[in-house]
Amino acid sequence: MRASNLLKVTGASVAAIALMAAPAIAADEPFALGDDETSFVFNTLLFLIGGFLVMFMAAGFAMLEAGLVRSKNVAMQCTKNIALYSIAGIMYYLVGYNLMYAGVDGGYIGSLSLWSPDDAGALGGAFGDGSGYAASSDWFFQMVFVAATASIVSGALAERIKLWPFLIFVVVLTGVIYPIQGAWQWGGGWLSEGGFSDFAGSTIVHSVGGWAALTGAIVLGARYGKYGENGQITVMPGSSIPLATLGTFILWLGWFGFNGASQLALGSASNAIDVSNIFINTNMAAAAGVVAAMVLTQLLYSKVDVTMALNGALAGLVSITAEPLTPSLGMAALIGGIGGVIVVLAVPMLDKFKIDDVVGAIPVHLFCGIWGTMAVPLTNGDTSFGMQATGVASIGAFVVVTTLALWLALRFTIGIRATEEEEIMGLDKAEIGLEAYPEFGNGSQKF
Amino acid sequence: MRASNLLKVTGASVAAIALMAAPAIAADEPFALGDDETSFVFNTLLFLIGGFLVMFMAAGFAMLEAGLVRSKNVAMQCTKNIALYSIAGIMYYLVGYNLMYAGVDGGYIGSLSLWSPDDAGALGGAFGDGSGYAASSDWFFQMVFVAATASIVSGALAERIKLWPFLIFVVVLTGVIYPIQGAWQWGGGWLSEGGFSDFAGSTIVHSVGGWAALTGAIVLGARYGKYGENGQITVMPGSSIPLATLGTFILWLGWFGFNGASQLALGSASNAIDVSNIFINTNMAAAAGVVAAMVLTQLLYSKVDVTMALNGALAGLVSITAEPLTPSLGMAALIGGIGGVIVVLAVPMLDKFKIDDVVGAIPVHLFCGIWGTMAVPLTNGDTSFGMQATGVASIGAFVVVTTLALWLALRFTIGIRATEEEEIMGLDKAEIGLEAYPEFGNGSQKF
Amino acid sequence: MRASNLLKVTGASVAAIALMAAPAIAADEPFALGDDETSFVFNTLLFLIGGFLVMFMAAGFAMLEAGLVRSKNVAMQCTKNIALYSIAGIMYYLVGYNLMYAGVDGGYIGSLSLWSPDDAGALGGAFGDGSGYAASSDWFFQMVFVAATASIVSGALAERIKLWPFLIFVVVLTGVIYPIQGAWQWGGGWLSEGGFSDFAGSTIVHSVGGWAALTGAIVLGARYGKYGENGQITVMPGSSIPLATLGTFILWLGWFGFNGASQLALGSASNAIDVSNIFINTNMAAAAGVVAAMVLTQLLYSKVDVTMALNGALAGLVSITAEPLTPSLGMAALIGGIGGVIVVLAVPMLDKFKIDDVVGAIPVHLFCGIWGTMAVPLTNGDTSFGMQATGVASIGAFVVVTTLALWLALRFTIGIRATEEEEIMGLDKAEIGLEAYPEFGNGSQKF
Repeated sequence: MRASNLLKVTGASVAAIALMAAPAIAADEPFALGDDETSFVFNTLLFLIGGFLVMFMAAGFAMLEAGLVRSKNVAMQCTKNIALYSIAGIMYYLVGYNLMYAGVDGGYIGSLSLWSPDDAGALGGAFGDGSGYAASSDWFFQMVFVAATASIVSGALAERIKLWPFLIFVVVLTGVIYPIQGAWQWGGGWLSEGGFSDFAGSTIVHSVGGWAALTGAIVLGARYGKYGENGQITVMPGSSIPLATLGTFILWLGWFGFNGASQLALGSASNAIDVSNIFINTNMAAAAGVVAAMVLTQLLYSKVDVTMALNGALAGLVSITAEPLTPSLGMAALIGGIGGVIVVLAVPMLDKFKIDDVVGAIPVHLFCGIWGTMAVPLTNGDTSFGMQATGVASIGAFVVVTTLALWLALRFTIGIRATEEEEIMGLDKAEIGLEAYPEFGNGSQKF
Repeated sequence: MRASNLLKVTGASVAAIALMAAPAIAADEPFALGDDETSFVFNTLLFLIGGFLVMFMAAGFAMLEAGLVRSKNVAMQCTKNIALYSIAGIMYYLVGYNLMYAGVDGGYIGSLSLWSPDDAGALGGAFGDGSGYAASSDWFFQMVFVAATASIVSGALAERIKLWPFLIFVVVLTGVIYPIQGAWQWGGGWLSEGGFSDFAGSTIVHSVGGWAALTGAIVLGARYGKYGENGQITVMPGSSIPLATLGTFILWLGWFGFNGASQLALGSASNAIDVSNIFINTNMAAAAGVVAAMVLTQLLYSKVDVTMALNGALAGLVSITAEPLTPSLGMAALIGGIGGVIVVLAVPMLDKFKIDDVVGAIPVHLFCGIWGTMAVPLTNGDTSFGMQATGVASIGAFVVVTTLALWLALRFTIGIRATEEEEIMGLDKAEIGLEAYPEFGNGSQKF
Repeated sequence: MRASNLLKVTGASVAAIALMAAPAIAADEPFALGDDETSFVFNTLLFLIGGFLVMFMAAGFAMLEAGLVRSKNVAMQCTKNIALYSIAGIMYYLVGYNLMYAGVDGGYIGSLSLWSPDDAGALGGAFGDGSGYAASSDWFFQMVFVAATASIVSGALAERIKLWPFLIFVVVLTGVIYPIQGAWQWGGGWLSEGGFSDFAGSTIVHSVGGWAALTGAIVLGARYGKYGENGQITVMPGSSIPLATLGTFILWLGWFGFNGASQLALGSASNAIDVSNIFINTNMAAAAGVVAAMVLTQLLYSKVDVTMALNGALAGLVSITAEPLTPSLGMAALIGGIGGVIVVLAVPMLDKFKIDDVVGAIPVHLFCGIWGTMAVPLTNGDTSFGMQATGVASIGAFVVVTTLALWLALRFTIGIRATEEEEIMGLDKAEIGLEAYPEFGNGSQKF
């Protein structure tokens, strides 16, 4: 998996190294542990820890979105987020994983089959020269990435999309669309062979979610009352800034797993060093995204906008995701800081085009995903701007075409949009049958 | 500890394996690492990581319950949850651990003594053939399980139980009742010798909490106004769906520690593979529980009920907890999905019996705990339905009798129930002396 | 780093141990793993896990403070917390780390230079006799400690400090003040050479944050309306008890990383045992702090105060932080329990002096930080009360002088305090330009 990132671990044993007077091994050559089974356990543990951190990002997206929508649609966002995470796991088992990883071999697609773990090699004593891991730990780690992709779409289309059509979209996105484009790169397909590089998914995860959100926002249209006839824009503030803040912090936490465990190995000092460098670059990019967004909103609007600070963190995180290993800390700050600037400038731009993205998912995940992917050659000499652009464009074209077709098919069959009355009443009452905060705010029931 | 689950790690070294032309070792035989101290560290690390994940479930229960009670009782639930977690740790040190694990030897109870760590063996160089671990890491992991048991009771009895009587109940539950029945199985007692199997505690943790909640709910009675004289049922919606959702996600996260670290060992490739399989089965059961609950509520009520979706996740998790290792992913989905169905059907059934379970703890933890335990023989050939039923029934009988006696003793001495006025006013004002949300909702103070 | 805590790992190999009939190695002598590279990976992993747990404490502080301030200042606290975490990371890279750790050598200060990782030794095959780790993992772990220090200040000064002056204070605190005093001990400076002991930072982190909060609270003055002319005190209850509870649980979770990974090594059974003992002592101190605070508030006020229970947990945690390894579980309970008592008694005492500490940060972090540091000789025979007092006093004096100068400089230049109108309106509207809960409470906008 993620064939392009797999390190070629040398067979040199530590004992052999100890015999050398002056180590002749260059700094960029990783060492293997003497004991491949130990490496196997470390590699597996990295996937498990990374996996549960990324799994928890589902909670982060849920809280971010619950905080950024109006209270009448909060229960709907909660429902969508726990449902999409569940569906992603089921679909990735039924279809997705093997479509992405089974026998892609430089091509465009894997095979259509149920996934099941195969650890026969390891159980037979073959630990893969230090690069082995438990099959299920890898599946778990890949699965939570699919869920993250779907989460991105959820926020952008909030407050007017109907539940079941959205969930059908998630079924196809996580079962088919995501895995096919993922096969091109992480499955060892044509992009991977061509030299495209996307370490942890600025393009493969974030821009894919962003493109799907963009096509969805266009097909769905803006929320009722959002854009007036005379160009005025109605601000519809989120119902809970602390929940949005909590969501952002959870996502930031999860990103250590997202990027760190995308190293795919922890079974040597070299890999441990790489994972550590990824941690600090990931953190620095987010920090710089926050500061850049705060300073820029202060300069532009004479006030700090906390939702921009939060999105600045996410922007920095998405921007560094394509290459969190090779940048210096200073470069990581630059890459993340530019991400923060992009978000502050892009949010009002989308409003000009009357594209209604409730949580800012398109600037964060699509624009910064592209930026991060294009920035890889700045620090990684094995990549080229041309090939990075090829990856961005080909995946973008594939996802735009397939998701647009899917949104339109849903729209003209079962319909995707709540009625105007439902939207005014709030989707919680209309579709979920309860209120998120029954005792507070407008719709307060008194007990 | 958990004698029945401990893997018998063979002494075969990796070097010996490497000499074999074709590995003759069957897939279900685990390997030992060449270095037992490395295994010791891995095993300890598994307990520590699993332990802090399960510890965080205390926050999950707190948020779930805070979200599902009315705002006037939210501070009370917060107080109860941080208090019960604290008490559980203290009681398990003073009494519980040794009552559960010290010299049970096929019997019914351990010894009455303070616990203190003994690592003399490991510090003397004896690492237990790869199965060793730090004593305190094991204690920590076992302790957080006790706390989870008490948390289950807290939610069911919300909105009318008084604080201190509840905490006295927790003292006895965590110090005496839980450890004694735990000794029967995980302490190596008679159930363990008889062949009962409960990998991570569908019965020993969840059904125990569920039984205690059931006896408590019966002795305590329903909330004021919940059940009318003509059979009508007043819906008392929870105050915050996003907090309930957050709590569910935290619990889901914690369950990777709950089930995964119940493997009790990570010091070999075989154990790493097992832990990974446990992770994905745990996740799949929860996902299937969510989907099953959503589809069923849509079919039954023409609307998706988000609280049922949340409880569906927990139902799936409880159901898979008795055996998260042997099922295939498909079987895990089936086991968890049935859990989701159970919850959707059982919640209105409890209402018919006028058993007022505020958060649905009894369906989730008791009914699904039983279901999960009885489902073990479906995938684990070393178990039998008869012995599983024996475990469920014997532990159930013990817990029903002891908790019923305890609830009644508390009721007829210091009293367990708030007065009608206190209940109407809310327990926050009555017992905690402040409001959870002083500026929102009914009781709003204006500043 | 943290020179005084580093264990001297013996070179004795496991193979050598195996040859001995009866192990002659004393219980307090740690073993080295046979393979130093394995230890390197374990040590690094401990820093990474500990680091992400402590990083998440930023979310804990944010939620605690968001819950304990009034709703009109919640967005401000969210902004400050994500901003200070970001600034801490940037400043620690630009200035702080090398000021704290580079060439202190028994002195008072390190060198002024950008930090960058140097893993040449490990990549050349030198793994430090089992004590090695990836440079960036150490940096990450140290950096999140700086951020925690700044978080402490944020809560105490809530509801009246202006955003940018606070952030400038954070720049200097995290870039200069914290690192200099940190150099004295963890950087291997004069306090470390003198025999001062502060395992995980009761003094170096918590009292420093507490002192900075105290000088800030004095310079800033109390909130408008807090203290009346006739000595009456206006209670200004926090807006959300569940968020405060969540924050406390997150902090408790993070403390396992805070204290546990301050062992600085996991690459041997001995270290794994120590980390495990730290986990359970940390947990026990917090539990005892909760129970002590609850019992005491019940006795004093005839009601349990949930905010005191929460602060009791934090008090216990701060108290055990100076020495979480050597106490028995019983002593850990005593140390933490006394912390809980301190907080309950100190909060009203501060009010008598009209020092307005919004969240109780000064009692928790300063008073309990001092208590915990002075309690070290009770269980650690290598320390003395005299030297502990020297450390507390010298760091206290340094931080009081420098932060007082800084607060005064800010006050008499750009100003640090919001106007009375802004304070009444709430800092969210005044400085952040939105409301945390626009649909609830007083300022409700109706959509």
